[in-house]
Amino acid sequence: MSRNFILKGNIVHTPESNCLVVRENAHVVCEDGVCRGVFDKIPECYGALPVVDCGDKMILPGMVDLHIHAAQYAYRGTGMDYELMDWLENIAFPEEMRYADAAYALKAYTQFAERLKASATTRAVIFGTVHADATLTLMNCMEKSGLVSYVGKVNMDRYAPPGLTEDHADGVGADTRRFIEKCLGRGYRRTKPIITPRFVPCCTDALMAALGDIRREYGLPVQSHLSENPDEVQAVARLAPQAEFYGDAYDRFGLFGRESNTVMAHCVYSTPSEIKRIKRNGVWVAHCPSSNMNIASGIAPVRRYMDEGLRIGLGSDVAGGTVESVFRAVTDAIQVSKLYWRYIDSGAKPLTFPEALYLATKGGGSFFGRVGSFEEGYAFDALVLDDSAEPTPRPLPVRSRLERAFYLGLDRGGIEMKYVDGERLF
Amino acid sequence: MSRNFILKGNIVHTPESNCLVVRENAHVVCEDGVCRGVFDKIPECYGALPVVDCGDKMILPGMVDLHIHAAQYAYRGTGMDYELMDWLENIAFPEEMRYADAAYALKAYTQFAERLKASATTRAVIFGTVHADATLTLMNCMEKSGLVSYVGKVNMDRYAPPGLTEDHADGVGADTRRFIEKCLGRGYRRTKPIITPRFVPCCTDALMAALGDIRREYGLPVQSHLSENPDEVQAVARLAPQAEFYGDAYDRFGLFGRESNTVMAHCVYSTPSEIKRIKRNGVWVAHCPSSNMNIASGIAPVRRYMDEGLRIGLGSDVAGGTVESVFRAVTDAIQVSKLYWRYIDSGAKPLTFPEALYLATKGGGSFFGRVGSFEEGYAFDALVLDDSAEPTPRPLPVRSRLERAFYLGLDRGGIEMKYVDGERLF
Repeated sequence: MSRNFILKGNIVHTPESNCLVVRENAHVVCEDGVCRGVFDKIPECYGALPVVDCGDKMILPGMVDLHIHAAQYAYRGTGMDYELMDWLENIAFPEEMRYADAAYALKAYTQFAERLKASATTRAVIFGTVHADATLTLMNCMEKSGLVSYVGKVNMDRYAPPGLTEDHADGVGADTRRFIEKCLGRGYRRTKPIITPRFVPCCTDALMAALGDIRREYGLPVQSHLSENPDEVQAVARLAPQAEFYGDAYDRFGLFGRESNTVMAHCVYSTPSEIKRIKRNGVWVAHCPSSNMNIASGIAPVRRYMDEGLRIGLGSDVAGGTVESVFRAVTDAIQVSKLYWRYIDSGAKPLTFPEALYLATKGGGSFFGRVGSFEEGYAFDALVLDDSAEPTPRPLPVRSRLERAFYLGLDRGGIEMKYVDGERLF
Repeated sequence: MSRNFILKGNIVHTPESNCLVVRENAHVVCEDGVCRGVFDKIPECYGALPVVDCGDKMILPGMVDLHIHAAQYAYRGTGMDYELMDWLENIAFPEEMRYADAAYALKAYTQFAERLKASATTRAVIFGTVHADATLTLMNCMEKSGLVSYVGKVNMDRYAPPGLTEDHADGVGADTRRFIEKCLGRGYRRTKPIITPRFVPCCTDALMAALGDIRREYGLPVQSHLSENPDEVQAVARLAPQAEFYGDAYDRFGLFGRESNTVMAHCVYSTPSEIKRIKRNGVWVAHCPSSNMNIASGIAPVRRYMDEGLRIGLGSDVAGGTVESVFRAVTDAIQVSKLYWRYIDSGAKPLTFPEALYLATKGGGSFFGRVGSFEEGYAFDALVLDDSAEPTPRPLPVRSRLERAFYLGLDRGGIEMKYVDGERLF
């Protein structure tokens, strides 16, 4: 399949935060899977490329999901009357235990990957379970989907049910090492492993130290959870008394940014010292507004993080979040920022739609490199969005149609074409 | 069409708040449009009724939307970066002015009514605009839809653009009187007028007094807005200095419950005195969580209202809310109640799914009479919900499937049949 072509239509993207560029009836050029920019008229040097005319449809960058649990997809939208710690015990852990069963894992992960493929998401950072084999199955499914992803075998060796607790019989971290060797050996083009301590309460120092070693040895990125919920933050203070703050419990083991890309989900209750460290170490924050409401965690002070210049993207956090839609995460992020401004910090202006869209594209995209924009040199990840089924008594400007598509969730059913690195997935 | 039949399937309803009844593979009987109860085996006296076998699908009461603006449907999901007063001026009022144009009104209201018909909503309390003719057009469309609704011609005679300000040339309220005479003369079966002062800031005392007279004369219900936003509450204190509190500015003119059904949208900032009056006068509260987030108003203390024993239902409040889905209002109500508990009042327990479902059915349904439940004697308003397109690696219990349907918005596309008063709409 050729990765050299031009899409013509209403092109929208956010090259900078709070700067929504709308180019009607324009052209975006893809050369070898890389974006060559947006043009009103096709530049002469690209005159020979085939043009896909998308008419009045909208063309926008693919969505980046910085935090999603594949093994929780099966129970999405259920068990929402729990708070975090009870939810883990009663809902999340029992489901994750099912992934010891290879047939179940294959069935569940096939459904997950098919749904993610059909969604607006082009790149994702994904939690599996503690099971290495099941997580390899997940990676096969993701590779087949055409999406680009980081996938983590989860690590836990305390405060989890027996079936989900790491076996250190042949050395701490041995299982993770084997998992990484195996997946590196498979020659995936789009699917890469990521070091994944579940969160501090479930990992002993010995395990954290081993994961730090493995990370250094293989040069891998890291994902985990951080300062999500008051009870959890208290538990960490008890379980890692030597840490200055929650994030320091990762940093002490080389699992908190610096030389490797690290993404931390939530950061609802990060202290000033933690925020400083997040910034200094270049850690990405995965803001998961839907999940933070559902599990009654709270609202992350995203405006403050933006003012600080932190790296921020959005996460659907299925199944704390209920849907894989990053469109939904965009509007949720705006909605909760308004409540944050109203009730908690009147100096923290609500997020605008262009700002939230930026987080979902270029913000989170930076975890993957030059991703999430139609600027020259960016990976050509694109969605063609058809909103014509949505009735309107009068024509709306493209800017309004785009906002409407997000608030109405038109990603479900409205995505007509999807490209990742210039390859068309459908 | 016969209104005597039996639906067979997984029947769910909430006869009491926080009491979700699930009856698998059971029968719900409809006789002359009235529910005769849920039975595991068909009682002998109904043995002759035809049975519609819905298989493994779920059968639930229709949703009641206590607050929606038909004339704002056209711009749903757009202009969400504004707060209430700016949003009215820049988005809501300019759109509402278009309804002076009969052709526009017909086109827009036809789309609105068709969408509402396709939604989970079976009954609604609806705002039109100040235009009597356009609002009659809306009533025609609603009558045709098969839904039961109250529809209001909006009243405003100050602080609105000229095109939306009431003309008192032939007497204060004359326009509303003519509107009511006309629609009563049309012999609608399902569509009734409702007295609709927009809100205190837009209505002079003279207009309020006239509306109070008309209400008494015709014995009509009332709808309006109450204590939605801090700026608005301040404006009311300035504009109606004689009122003890916001709601008293309606009550002084006989537009606040007592002998006629009254529904007030929002009640985010109701004072203890106002809450007491709401209760004493039997006013319904239309809780509109999505709108309250979008226009940055806040979170209504619904748990406290429930504890007080107020009458409460849910409103989509399109287009402060972005979608007509009451399913969405249910999950939004739960989500914001968790933030309210977390940040504002730790004594206000988050809403559970059964509680929010109760508000959306029997809670709001009580505004229409015996509506919103499958108990004996209730109006037979029912949805048959098909969730089989949603993949799952293992069978889920009906309770979980129902919760999932709400959180995933399966009302869009998943409603296979819809009944109002025992008449099948599709």
